[in-house]
Amino acid sequence: MVKSELIRGPQIITPKDSAMILAYTNTEPGSKVVDAGTGSGFLAIFLATYLNPGKVYTYENDYRFVKIAKENIKKSGLSKFIVLRNADITKGIKEKKVDLITLDLKDAKKVVKHAHKALKAGGYLVVYSPTVEHLIEVIKEIKKNKFKGLKTIENIVREWKTDYTTRPKTMGIMHTGFLTFAKK
Amino acid sequence: MVKSELIRGPQIITPKDSAMILAYTNTEPGSKVVDAGTGSGFLAIFLATYLNPGKVYTYENDYRFVKIAKENIKKSGLSKFIVLRNADITKGIKEKKVDLITLDLKDAKKVVKHAHKALKAGGYLVVYSPTVEHLIEVIKEIKKNKFKGLKTIENIVREWKTDYTTRPKTMGIMHTGFLTFAKK
Amino acid sequence: MVKSELIRGPQIITPKDSAMILAYTNTEPGSKVVDAGTGSGFLAIFLATYLNPGKVYTYENDYRFVKIAKENIKKSGLSKFIVLRNADITKGIKEKKVDLITLDLKDAKKVVKHAHKALKAGGYLVVYSPTVEHLIEVIKEIKKNKFKGLKTIENIVREWKTDYTTRPKTMGIMHTGFLTFAKK
Amino acid sequence: MVKSELIRGPQIITPKDSAMILAYTNTEPGSKVVDAGTGSGFLAIFLATYLNPGKVYTYENDYRFVKIAKENIKKSGLSKFIVLRNADITKGIKEKKVDLITLDLKDAKKVVKHAHKALKAGGYLVVYSPTVEHLIEVIKEIKKNKFKGLKTIENIVREWKTDYTTRPKTMGIMHTGFLTFAKK
Repeated sequence: MVKSELIRGPQIITPKDSAMILAYTNTEPGSKVVDAGTGSGFLAIFLATYLNPGKVYTYENDYRFVKIAKENIKKSGLSKFIVLRNADITKGIKEKKVDLITLDLKDAKKVVKHAHKALKAGGYLVVYSPTVEHLIEVIKEIKKNKFKGLKTIENIVREWKTDYTTRPKTMGIMHTGFLTFAKK
Repeated sequence: MVKSELIRGPQIITPKDSAMILAYTNTEPGSKVVDAGTGSGFLAIFLATYLNPGKVYTYENDYRFVKIAKENIKKSGLSKFIVLRNADITKGIKEKKVDLITLDLKDAKKVVKHAHKALKAGGYLVVYSPTVEHLIEVIKEIKKNKFKGLKTIENIVREWKTDYTTRPKTMGIMHTGFLTFAKK
Repeated sequence: MVKSELIRGPQIITPKDSAMILAYTNTEPGSKVVDAGTGSGFLAIFLATYLNPGKVYTYENDYRFVKIAKENIKKSGLSKFIVLRNADITKGIKEKKVDLITLDLKDAKKVVKHAHKALKAGGYLVVYSPTVEHLIEVIKEIKKNKFKGLKTIENIVREWKTDYTTRPKTMGIMHTGFLTFAKK
Repeated sequence: MVKSELIRGPQIITPKDSAMILAYTNTEPGSKVVDAGTGSGFLAIFLATYLNPGKVYTYENDYRFVKIAKENIKKSGLSKFIVLRNADITKGIKEKKVDLITLDLKDAKKVVKHAHKALKAGGYLVVYSPTVEHLIEVIKEIKKNKFKGLKTIENIVREWKTDYTTRPKTMGIMHTGFLTFAKK
């Protein structure tokens, strides 16, 4: 079970943005992944699904979200592949030789240096930034920590109507967030 | 090995568009997939990678592409999960109870009725249309064949520069293709 | 008075699309313009405003819209520069040596040949197409009538939020119409 | 003569962005306008053309650009409506009761307070920002100076191909600048 039936708690990273992480990092199934904040667990479940039989270590500091995530992970049937840590990732990352680290949290900038230590050579850091202020802070830290291959994208999905005639829908989602990719 | 080191033969569906197929269809790992035309094999390899241990049956009519695809599939290390058919998919689909069918070929409209037969209930058809004329033809066939949940999207990735200042890159890719999703 | 206080009747061409007509045609103030359908008169008033002291001949077949347009033109204070014709432009254009013809009506394709006759050499035809089917029909007629410099654009305005942080607005207008430019 | 035949000196604001200024400010023909930096004079000429018989006061500090702009203004035939000031607008604006002020210069933030003094009540300030850092600085100053109706947009023009089939062009201009509008 992948993306349906999950309880929606805090704002989640959209499927289109989650999928971009696979598209732009070449992460192999079987990889070791660190993810924070867990939120409702959507991204951890998405990655555990498609990187099977990898392992996803997901950090969440807020106990209310941990409860929601726990239930969603159980529903996903992927408990074996997801380790949910009720911990503050800005304090450090336990895992070593990590293939992929995904950050979707306010204080992402404080995690960049820990991410550099935890990643294996060639491993990817991906940061989701809802605002340009967040983006600018994160980019600054990434540069300071000597990552390579820095790339930032927006991914805009435009829906089309095809009922009687063919044209883009009048209204739509113009922005979710900026995705920044960097390689150790 | 996912997306690098492959020989680029015919125009390939981009990683961003391939990833949208996962994002919008909820296809489970372990699924049975039919794909055509194979081209250089990029999409078949992408799907075999992330839907592991599923099976991808990929059809290609042009023998020159079959040769390129064969080599790429071998390089991918996923030969066990990909069946390459040198056959014309407009003549019919051998597989039954298919979970996902992806079409990226000029005559996609001629395959829609075969796809409806081959799919299991709830299975997804995804068609890639480079032009609106192609899109309009395909939509017409999809409607005629009583698919459900018709949805067409464009997916535009905008790269940002973050060297000294922060702004979108001046030039970029404005269009790859339209992706149409339909459910049996 | 330009764009405010007017009665909104039928769907109007947006300010952003109206402004593109000036941006992409180089039309000089003092020009002779033909416009159809008048609708609520928005585009005729916009063009009369910025092409002052030009003359805008605007055709509307539907008497209900003529009434709304008449009132709006009066309010605009530009009555001297706008001639409102309650006539069917698909039957022909009275004016000769026209600098600019703007078409925003269902049957635009039937007006293209009349437009070619009415335009002076170097004059511009601009057609607004809400759907790709409309666009394709219009393009076909434009090609048949030997126009030059064919160009079709979409113009997408994305609003940004700048209250506490800086980011594009989540929701917005994804599509108004396609604008096609052609030169006699 | 509007936008052709002019000498291209420094980077100019594009026609599409110039046109947005008319679309989003409702500026009347006959208005008093202040513009800086002049650059090659493109925007001053555009505004003098469509706001005729208004007056455009345009400031340029760099003598090399003044020379180019002088020649372009002469060629435009609009010398009577454009006053070119070889002066540093960050030091102050001479004009009073101005209807519209357009800023396209690195130090735009230093001009915002002068703009507030120079504008009449209801007058518009429009600032062009190539980067988000520039945008953020400008927004901060605009808020400090108690402007109203703050609005920031991007305007993306996507060209379509209509030769044999119909589809957006593969490559295109993804970004020119952000336009910020504020009202005194």
